[in-house]
Formats: sequence, C-alpha cells, structure tokens
Amino acid sequence: MHSLSRRSISSLLRFGGTRYRNFAAPVSSSDILNQIVGQRNDEARWYSAFTADHYSPTTISNSSNSWRDPFMGIRHKSTASAPNSSFISSERYDHHAEEKIDPFSLVADELSILANRLRSMVVAEVPKLASAAEYFFKIGAEGKRFRPTVLLLMATAIDAPISRPLPDTAVDALSMDLRTRQQCIAEITEMIHVASLLHDDVLDDADTRRGVGSLNFVMGNKLAVLAGDFLLSRACVALASLKNTEVVSLLARVVEHLVTGETMQMTTASDQRCSMEYYMQKTYYKTASLISNSCKAIALLAGQSTEVAMLAYDYGKNLGLAFQLIDDVLDFTGTSASLGKGSLSDIRHGVVTAPILFAMEEFPELRAVVDRGFDNPSNVDIALEYLEKSRGIQRTKELAEKHANLASAAIDSLPETDDENVLRSRRALVDLAERVITRTK
Amino acid sequence: MHSLSRRSISSLLRFGGTRYRNFAAPVSSSDILNQIVGQRNDEARWYSAFTADHYSPTTISNSSNSWRDPFMGIRHKSTASAPNSSFISSERYDHHAEEKIDPFSLVADELSILANRLRSMVVAEVPKLASAAEYFFKIGAEGKRFRPTVLLLMATAIDAPISRPLPDTAVDALSMDLRTRQQCIAEITEMIHVASLLHDDVLDDADTRRGVGSLNFVMGNKLAVLAGDFLLSRACVALASLKNTEVVSLLARVVEHLVTGETMQMTTASDQRCSMEYYMQKTYYKTASLISNSCKAIALLAGQSTEVAMLAYDYGKNLGLAFQLIDDVLDFTGTSASLGKGSLSDIRHGVVTAPILFAMEEFPELRAVVDRGFDNPSNVDIALEYLEKSRGIQRTKELAEKHANLASAAIDSLPETDDENVLRSRRALVDLAERVITRTK
Repeated sequence: MHSLSRRSISSLLRFGGTRYRNFAAPVSSSDILNQIVGQRNDEARWYSAFTADHYSPTTISNSSNSWRDPFMGIRHKSTASAPNSSFISSERYDHHAEEKIDPFSLVADELSILANRLRSMVVAEVPKLASAAEYFFKIGAEGKRFRPTVLLLMATAIDAPISRPLPDTAVDALSMDLRTRQQCIAEITEMIHVASLLHDDVLDDADTRRGVGSLNFVMGNKLAVLAGDFLLSRACVALASLKNTEVVSLLARVVEHLVTGETMQMTTASDQRCSMEYYMQKTYYKTASLISNSCKAIALLAGQSTEVAMLAYDYGKNLGLAFQLIDDVLDFTGTSASLGKGSLSDIRHGVVTAPILFAMEEFPELRAVVDRGFDNPSNVDIALEYLEKSRGIQRTKELAEKHANLASAAIDSLPETDDENVLRSRRALVDLAERVITRTK
Repeated sequence: MHSLSRRSISSLLRFGGTRYRNFAAPVSSSDILNQIVGQRNDEARWYSAFTADHYSPTTISNSSNSWRDPFMGIRHKSTASAPNSSFISSERYDHHAEEKIDPFSLVADELSILANRLRSMVVAEVPKLASAAEYFFKIGAEGKRFRPTVLLLMATAIDAPISRPLPDTAVDALSMDLRTRQQCIAEITEMIHVASLLHDDVLDDADTRRGVGSLNFVMGNKLAVLAGDFLLSRACVALASLKNTEVVSLLARVVEHLVTGETMQMTTASDQRCSMEYYMQKTYYKTASLISNSCKAIALLAGQSTEVAMLAYDYGKNLGLAFQLIDDVLDFTGTSASLGKGSLSDIRHGVVTAPILFAMEEFPELRAVVDRGFDNPSNVDIALEYLEKSRGIQRTKELAEKHANLASAAIDSLPETDDENVLRSRRALVDLAERVITRTK
C-alpha cells in the first residue's frame, strides 16, 4: 500500500477540506440503493472468484475498447465521454451539512493511546531490529494515523443495537473489552501497513531509485526485510490474542493481497499493463484490501450482522480505491493542478495508472508509447502530451468520486440509530470520503 | 534456519547412518531423569525470560572464562578439558538396538501426500509469484522433508491414551480429523522454513556473495521478499483454519524468533560475536525454535498434557541445536573430517560459530583475530591454525552429542505404551537424533 504513503498522508492531514460539490445531477435514494446492491452483488461474484484462488490474470480480457470496473458492476464504453458521474447526487450530503466534523479530532485522544501502545508493541530484543521496526512509529509521526482513524470511527459508527448473540470467541475473550479489541485491530492494521511499506521498498539491486530516506537505503535491504517480518509476526501474535480465527484468516488474506498487488504492479506484459481491469484489481489488492478487510474485522469483533460487516467492508474498499485514484492523478498534477507538475514518479518507473489508461481509450496510439517503456524521458513527454489532450485526468477524478460516493452510501445504509455519538462518527466517515477526493496534494 | 539447507538436508538423507557409540561412561537412568528435569526447569526460566520479551542481549555476560549453556543448565568452565560427555550413556540406546528403523521410510507415503498438498497450497494467482513460491517445492525436491518427517513421527510417537478431554477448539474443528490437522502443521512449518530461507538470502546490495542459484539471485531481491511474504500469509491462513489460537500464537512467535536469530547473527559487536551464550541463543532462534515449537503444536492439537507437549518441544529443541552444532563443525571439516576442507562459508562471512568460540576459551589471543574480522583471508588462516591446535571441533561435537541425547531422553520420557506403531515412531525419532550427530556431510 505504497501510495498511502507517509508523505501523502501528512498532506492529507494538512489539507483543510472544502466540501466537494461537483456532482452533475441528483438521483433518488432508491436509485442509490439499487446501485449499491447491484454493485455489491456483482462485487461478491468478482471477489469470490479471487478468494477461491481460481482467478488467473490470464483470463483478464484486454479489450481496449471497453472494460468492466469490478467494483462498480459497470462496463465502461470506449467513448471519449466521461462515464455518468451523476448517479449519486450531491443531495445525499445535504442532511449532513449542518455540522462540520473533523474526523481526526474526534478520535485524537484514543489515537495517542494507540500510538503509545504501538510503540510498546514493536519493542524488540535486538536493538538493531527494534530501531528498524520503530522507524515508522516514532514520536512525531503520530499525525499520519489515517487507517486507525477510519477504524476507530467505524467502531463507533456501527455501534448500534446488535441483533444476534455475540460469537463464542467474543465470550472467550471477555478479559479484553470490545473497544480494546477493536483498537487492537487498528494497531495490527498499522503494523501490517508498515511491514508492507518496508518490503515494497526493497530494491532489486543497489540502485536507490525509489528514493533516499527509505529504511532499506538507511539500514540495508536485509534489515528492512527482517523488520517487516518482525512487524508481521507481532501483528500475527496480536491477532491470535483476539481469539477469533475468522479475523486471523481475514487479515492473513490481506497480507497475501498486498503481495499479489505488488507483484501485479511489477508485470511487464503489455496486455496487463494496458488493462484498466488489471489496474483496478491491482489497486484493490495493494491499497483497498487492507482498509476494507480491517473495517470488516471491526464489525465481526462486535458480533455485528453479515450485512453490517459487509457495509463496513464496502466503505473501506471504496475509500481505498478513491484514495488511490486521486493519488494517481496527483502524481501527474501535483499541487498546481496542472499536468506535469506532479512528481511523475509512477510513469517514470513504468507504472501505468488510470489517467494514462483512460487517455489510451481515446488515443489507442498511446499504447505503442507505453509499450516502448519509459526509460527514455522523451517517451514520458509524449505520453504527457496525449494525456493533456485527453479526458484521462477528468475521468479518473470522476471514477474516484463515484467510489467516494459509494463509500458514503455504505455508511448511510447502516441500521438507523438516534445515538448522537454514532451519528457523529458516521458523519466523520462521510467527511473523510469527501476529503480523500478533494485533496490537492 | 538457514543451515538446515537444501544441500545439507539432502546430504543427511543420503547418509546411511551408522550408530554413534562414542559416549564415555554409562550412568543410571535416575541420573538421566534428574539431568533432564534439571535442564528443563532451568530452560523454562531461561525461555520464559525470552517469551516475556524482557530479555536484552546487553544482559548477556560475556565472561570469556565460562558460559552458561541455557539449554543444558550447565556452566562450562574455562578449562581446556571437554565437558563431561558421559552423563547419558550409550546404554540408553541398547534396548532399541534390536530393530533398525529408517525414519524416512516410515512416513514416506504420507510425505508424498503432503508434498502434493504443499504444491497446491502455494499456487498463486500471479504466475511470477507462483513460480517464486514454488521454487522450493518442485517435484524432485521431495527428498528434503526433514521437518515434516520429524513432525509426522512425533504425531504417532505421542499417540498414547489422552489423559484429559479434547480442548474446545478441537471440537470446533471436527470437520478435519486430527491426523490431517497435524499434517497441516507439517505443511505450515515447511512454508515458514522456506519463507525464512528466502528472506535470509536477501542481500544488502547487488553483491552475490551468498551464492549463485538462490532465488534472490535468479529473480531479484524484491521477488524473493514477496514470495516469502506470500508463503508466510498462506501459512497464516492455514494456521487460522486449525482454529486453535494457542497454536497460531506459538508459530507466530517462531517467525519472530527466526527474525531475531538472523538479526543477532548480523551483529558486529565483539562482546556478542565472541559470546558462547549469545551464539547458543542465536542458534535456538534461528534453528531450533521452529522445529521445537511445531513439535509442541503437534501435541497441543492432539489435546495432550502439558508434560507431553513439553517433551515434544524438548525433543525438537535439542534435535535442532545438535543439528546446527554439527553443521558448524562440517563447515570447517567438510566430508574429509579434516580441518579446512569444509566450505568455510561461516567464517569467511564473519559468522563466528561454536568451534571457534571453544578454541577461544583455550587461546584467548584468538579473540583479537576475530575482532579484526575475516575480510582478509590471512586472518581466516590464522583462526584455523588456532582451531587446529585447540579442542574446539571436539568440544562442539560433544555438545552436539549431549543435545542429541537430551532429544532421545525426551522421547524415552513419554508415557509408557505397548502400541507397536507408537514405539516404532519413537525409535525412529531416537534414530534421527543419532543420525544428526553422526553425519559427516
């Protein structure tokens, strides 16, 4: 989950967050519901194909003229026009408009408890290992707790009356109260995230192309690998202490997804690099799986219904996808909102993202440029020219908006409640989804 | 657990296995028992110090004149004489002498089922990841299943009447019978082992000093890391399916131990590199923890008593330590049993092992040589000269014998039974312990 990086999360935190209002036309709430249900059914089929381990990337159709967004249940046509970005209206935010919620301040106290506990959890016997593992948990780095914020808000947001008895495992673990166990999920999620950052940054060789300051550069590839393994094993020990094997299994699958996503990104096959479907699947694995499945774990620990757990999952998944799509835009535009002012880090490393893929639908000749690779900087310039005259950036933003709206819609579909605490957390989650797509850095 | 490598395990398998009879003097069986009980009590204190995470390597006393073997409960004096290698006599093997057991053929059929299942468990969605993960599980590599052999034999060896009701978790998982669940532990152990091999071989830089043919060389550091992570996540998913959180926790700790051991081996501090106690702790973490804790997991799944689980653990721990000590000898002697004919791989990479540490007790001036490091080949030659005139090799062998004997004694302490299957597996485990110390390559 490289793209939700330290830098970009701090940027997110610094961002003030004006409301995003760029939705074209209102639709009815039943349309919204149908959209979500349709999306979820479709997604369930798609997702089960993955979890059953029968999925093979070779089955991905790479018709460059249309692609199916597995997360939306929509087959996009190869028209140069934008997909209809209006199916969820700005109306749905209006009933929240009365109160401005700062998602981060709502859980600030709890986050600092959590940060302290995280630091104590990564204390290692061997000093070298300890300093490597603590690299991302140092005091002064607390501001970046994006995932824990989401998870703590989610824990409160679903805290409605529980419709069925607590699972046995919850009874087994009475010694630890529910909130503490949910906090533990947030800690585990952060450890898995940092472990994946450490391992993603391991280099194939001594070349430091991925940037100075990464742990592998400072302390060597090997120690970065060992520190990542150490965090994974600590996460696994903490998971086991929750005594819920469904949750263990869920988060173990996430580690597998992170690895699968990273490996998919390393592909050199043109059919895969140029497929929007492949890109979306890779993005789910690399960015959305961790936050969606840990949201689900929060609900499972609470003994919530399958429906609530699935809504929590949907929120996390769509938030993660929206975040990554905007990240891919910002890599081109940077803070200036104009092309070529971003770091261009992805394309320079040969990673083809949504803006280029959308541009390629309008200008099929761009594919030949992509196939030549981007080792030659002039090829980057040619690709940017195509991107500039295409609607690639705009369509990527619109897709991000759709996923942000789906995230918010999942929150709105949670069981009704009058509890002001619960409602406040739900508004904060909706606010977070808006911030993700409106940030400009 | 690098030293139980593919090469050395095949060598072990090829080795015929004449009985080792080089024990100096018989002692009574009550002496043996006291020795084991004493050792276990001492070891329990030592081990709990680790698991409580309060252990700090800085507390290791590095009196070069004596050291405490935490696995034996013995403080070795700095005399040049060998520690008494006779406290467990050759008599204890005599009652087994009537039947020659080939440990590997006893479980050969089951091993091939297991090998097939392992191959199916590491199938990945992404071809690149699959081929990396399968690297160590290919057909033709089945001969190396040292750990699965030990674990399957252990499963039968402890299959005596169970004195207490099955734990709840065993009832939860009735859909999978006990033997299948124990086989699953063997598969998980193999996956963790291979993952650690992949990660241990990651290089700090493009230098291929660790040898051609390692996965990181063939496919790049990064893919080796991802393939290792993939195996760890598959192992974790398989662990979760056993629905026994004590076992999840136990094997998660093992991953932490493997990492800790590898990091300890990377130390450059003279006090640590020259400490026998530090070396033994590192060896436990790197080599003995995986086999000992998975032996314990086999017993826990069967609902065996704490005592039986501890004996299974003791067998695995002492077998692992004996194996590594002999491995360290062979690194110097090779097949020729004469000094300097081994690969000298450890010392050339600056890894100081038991033979040198024992030699240093006799010739304290060797420490200055070690402190200069072994980048200069002439320093290796000087160290070998000291080793040659010392009893370092002999004392390392004797220490390995002691641990092999403790392993066998743990088997002999298992509850009495008349079941011929059980007895045959016990004899095979004792035979394995002998093979470990008598191999010459």
